[in-house]
Amino acid sequence: MPYVNIKITDEGVTAEQKAELIKGVTDLLVKVLDKNPQTTVVVIDEVSTDNWGIGGETVTVKRNKK
Amino acid sequence: MPYVNIKITDEGVTAEQKAELIKGVTDLLVKVLDKNPQTTVVVIDEVSTDNWGIGGETVTVKRNKK
Amino acid sequence: MPYVNIKITDEGVTAEQKAELIKGVTDLLVKVLDKNPQTTVVVIDEVSTDNWGIGGETVTVKRNKK
Amino acid sequence: MPYVNIKITDEGVTAEQKAELIKGVTDLLVKVLDKNPQTTVVVIDEVSTDNWGIGGETVTVKRNKK
Amino acid sequence: MPYVNIKITDEGVTAEQKAELIKGVTDLLVKVLDKNPQTTVVVIDEVSTDNWGIGGETVTVKRNKK
Amino acid sequence: MPYVNIKITDEGVTAEQKAELIKGVTDLLVKVLDKNPQTTVVVIDEVSTDNWGIGGETVTVKRNKK
Repeated sequence: MPYVNIKITDEGVTAEQKAELIKGVTDLLVKVLDKNPQTTVVVIDEVSTDNWGIGGETVTVKRNKK
Repeated sequence: MPYVNIKITDEGVTAEQKAELIKGVTDLLVKVLDKNPQTTVVVIDEVSTDNWGIGGETVTVKRNKK
Repeated sequence: MPYVNIKITDEGVTAEQKAELIKGVTDLLVKVLDKNPQTTVVVIDEVSTDNWGIGGETVTVKRNKK
Repeated sequence: MPYVNIKITDEGVTAEQKAELIKGVTDLLVKVLDKNPQTTVVVIDEVSTDNWGIGGETVTVKRNKK
Repeated sequence: MPYVNIKITDEGVTAEQKAELIKGVTDLLVKVLDKNPQTTVVVIDEVSTDNWGIGGETVTVKRNKK
Repeated sequence: MPYVNIKITDEGVTAEQKAELIKGVTDLLVKVLDKNPQTTVVVIDEVSTDNWGIGGETVTVKRNKK
């Protein structure tokens, strides 16, 4: 019955990688807490680098500095 | 003053259906808790079926199995 | 498969009222979008009036003004 | 280490305005709570006016009434 | 830089289990997406069984039926 | 109409500091985006240090290392 929300920047994550995240988080909840995978929900939000800030700057600005 | 977030898969939900969800949830909070509808906020997130997992699989994979 | 999060102030909401909210939201998603109630998750967060702001003030301050 | 999520309607917010929100929220957390800006995360979600409800109506409908 | 929110029912989860979830999710994001663990944030919300609904019922009611 | 959620660790934040955060975020949204403060909602979640992870560790463990 757990609900997991994963927020990451929108930078070319593939459907396979998303499937791997969903499988991995679900397995973890089964292993650690014996949760029922059939009602374990995982939602991935991909966020534009303009909309994600860390250290007071957007990730877009951070990436351009490198 | 309540805040409600509804997350659903992005599968052709119409503007009319969204309006019906918003109206229905707001009415429910007025009825059950006597909340003020004028400050009741409802936000609907539509999530790609690649980004929604249940039972350790994406909804995309689940839909393709049927 | 929808996930709904309801945030309300923590002001004496009863278990019966919470059950009524959960039933009402689930029924609404079945009616409007034909969702499967068995995998519809509703989570209610009760938030202290010190931690809820509207109009730039906490609800605690707003309540005391009345 | 704080995490802040700002949800606004998707109505032409510029990259500069988003950067200003991220800077402003991060500075506020440093000033009020002495948080470390390097691990302060801010995520902005822009939501379609069809998907945002207040007063039981979508913002799309509200805007059209004006 | 990812942010992960795990919501589970509040049913005696130990500090060790929470640490295991945090470690497991962080490792998964490093492995699948090569994310930096130092800025990967995981927040666990424990929700009262009265406040968690599935199938239109609270978990409290579901547990009592068994 | 914006909705802002601030998540911080539960480490003795005072009601005055919370009020200052709420005022500051609301003012910021008025200044940057000309939002209406009367419908701007801010919710602060205080999270136990056992339930907050960064760098793959709980904040409790991090604090004890210092």
